[in-house]
Amino acid sequence: MKCQTIKFKKQPKIVGSYSIVGPKEGEGNFKDYFDYIMKNDFFGEKTFEKAERKMVENAIIGAIAKAKLEVKDVNLLVAGDLLNQIISSSYAARAFDFPYLGVYGACSTMAESMAVGAIIVDGGYYDNVVCCTTSHFSTAERQYRFPLEFGNQRPPVSQWTVTGAGACVLSLKGEGPKVTMATFGKVVDWGIVDVNNMGAAMAPSAMETMLAHFENTSTTPDDYDLIVTGDLGKLGSEILIDLMEEKGIKLGLNYGDCGQMYYRRDQKTLCGGSGCGCSATVFNSYIINKLKKGELKKVLFMPTGALLSTTATQQGESVPGVCHAIVIEG
Amino acid sequence: MKCQTIKFKKQPKIVGSYSIVGPKEGEGNFKDYFDYIMKNDFFGEKTFEKAERKMVENAIIGAIAKAKLEVKDVNLLVAGDLLNQIISSSYAARAFDFPYLGVYGACSTMAESMAVGAIIVDGGYYDNVVCCTTSHFSTAERQYRFPLEFGNQRPPVSQWTVTGAGACVLSLKGEGPKVTMATFGKVVDWGIVDVNNMGAAMAPSAMETMLAHFENTSTTPDDYDLIVTGDLGKLGSEILIDLMEEKGIKLGLNYGDCGQMYYRRDQKTLCGGSGCGCSATVFNSYIINKLKKGELKKVLFMPTGALLSTTATQQGESVPGVCHAIVIEG
Repeated sequence: MKCQTIKFKKQPKIVGSYSIVGPKEGEGNFKDYFDYIMKNDFFGEKTFEKAERKMVENAIIGAIAKAKLEVKDVNLLVAGDLLNQIISSSYAARAFDFPYLGVYGACSTMAESMAVGAIIVDGGYYDNVVCCTTSHFSTAERQYRFPLEFGNQRPPVSQWTVTGAGACVLSLKGEGPKVTMATFGKVVDWGIVDVNNMGAAMAPSAMETMLAHFENTSTTPDDYDLIVTGDLGKLGSEILIDLMEEKGIKLGLNYGDCGQMYYRRDQKTLCGGSGCGCSATVFNSYIINKLKKGELKKVLFMPTGALLSTTATQQGESVPGVCHAIVIEG
Repeated sequence: MKCQTIKFKKQPKIVGSYSIVGPKEGEGNFKDYFDYIMKNDFFGEKTFEKAERKMVENAIIGAIAKAKLEVKDVNLLVAGDLLNQIISSSYAARAFDFPYLGVYGACSTMAESMAVGAIIVDGGYYDNVVCCTTSHFSTAERQYRFPLEFGNQRPPVSQWTVTGAGACVLSLKGEGPKVTMATFGKVVDWGIVDVNNMGAAMAPSAMETMLAHFENTSTTPDDYDLIVTGDLGKLGSEILIDLMEEKGIKLGLNYGDCGQMYYRRDQKTLCGGSGCGCSATVFNSYIINKLKKGELKKVLFMPTGALLSTTATQQGESVPGVCHAIVIEG
């Protein structure tokens, strides 16, 4: 097997990070860690899509401010999101006087953007790179599923798209947790055709990337304080645990999934949170906080993405998944 | 102004490239340079979207073969396309046993993927990276505009989405033209709201990136054998020439636009070709060919992308553009 894992020599630091979430997310399990909780999902805009764009703008501004940098110090934005043509990211990028590199990895985008950003900073190509992603329940729901007004019943395996944006600044200067490794994942498709069951569709890609990462780096789950997937949810994370056990690797109490942990049980999100914003807001609030405090020392962050589109589904395609992993050390 | 231009120390080489186009494109001005001309737009598949995915697969396989490499030698695919959730690229990636990094820059994607690929190879992070993009007239038309059966009249400023995919392999080993520089562009929006007039919407971003590139590198148009934009088309390239002249820089006979040059006059494409596949297939056939033969020595390749979506347009948004540039030397 070719080595998929990149080890960073200079180890770019996360010098600033910011998370902004909707009101439902602001009542969930990570409520004490977010930088900003919106009062409603419109965020002062006329449409949910414009609100999502504004969330991205604010996350970028927030991360730059927390890095004690100015907009003029930033060399590049690496960002993407779930909306068609990643408009939340692209239209947000319009507001800033720095170049923009659009990426797409569905809900794996936070790790993808950070892996790309870390390569660019580690290699000395640019000094300060902002990495960002977002999702919004109301924009995702009406683009991927049904009109909100339709009020469809949600199947038990479904998840709740997080309304939230997360951003961080990578740099060699300044202080913060270090990005030490990155493992880009392969696209894996085990033939799942139930578009409500994203956890089952994405779990195999998480397994593939995790196996590659452990093999490439000669590590085991015990080498990490926290191994965290993005939005496999309750069912998907159980499937991952099973799949890994079949491969002889036992994921213990140091394994968790952002989606599974995101909401309180009485918030009725069924299998938990999902969307790019799910792992992005947990990473850029709770996880960064714990790394800075020294309560976490080495984290394997590996959000997964379901690479479907409504067109692909309508043409009878199954749902491929991808999982990109990064290692962050305090 | 911060330096936007990256200069590659090791100068990754384009060791293999491949272009595949539809029958209309195969009758255009570059017909003698393409690797494969399809007999029809379905390419043996049941839908245009599946045909587009298959074009990507073939372009990737073709580029790897022409690089005299095997699939097992490839470390990463960097790809994106115009379809929602870049499904042509993601579903094609499913067929290959190497990691996948999805990118989105609309019709600037060939340069974006190559800039990212060149950074990864130049920095020594991976050995062999495939960069790819695609577009298909029939998938783009029905996603962005009208059902094909509707047979709408096309306004004079409109362009014709190229059915074609282009791919290349970047590596430090082997022989081929070198990627020596890359300039990531900013998102520029001058308020164009006519979604048929992509040339006008994208020309300002080409100007911004071109000005940044010339300033960052202390070069002038005379330093390049060929300066080529992606799909500004007849009108957009005229606008770019005007805009540059206003800034005191005269673009001469060494400037051209892939879209403007793509089709014969009697092929009725109005302002010319467009789509990710436009610049991708010209670059990976004609331009690479001329570089290899020594007929071109230094090329500034700068495709532009219009970062709109139908949702953004329906919500009254204007059309932002982005332009990424790379320099290739024979």
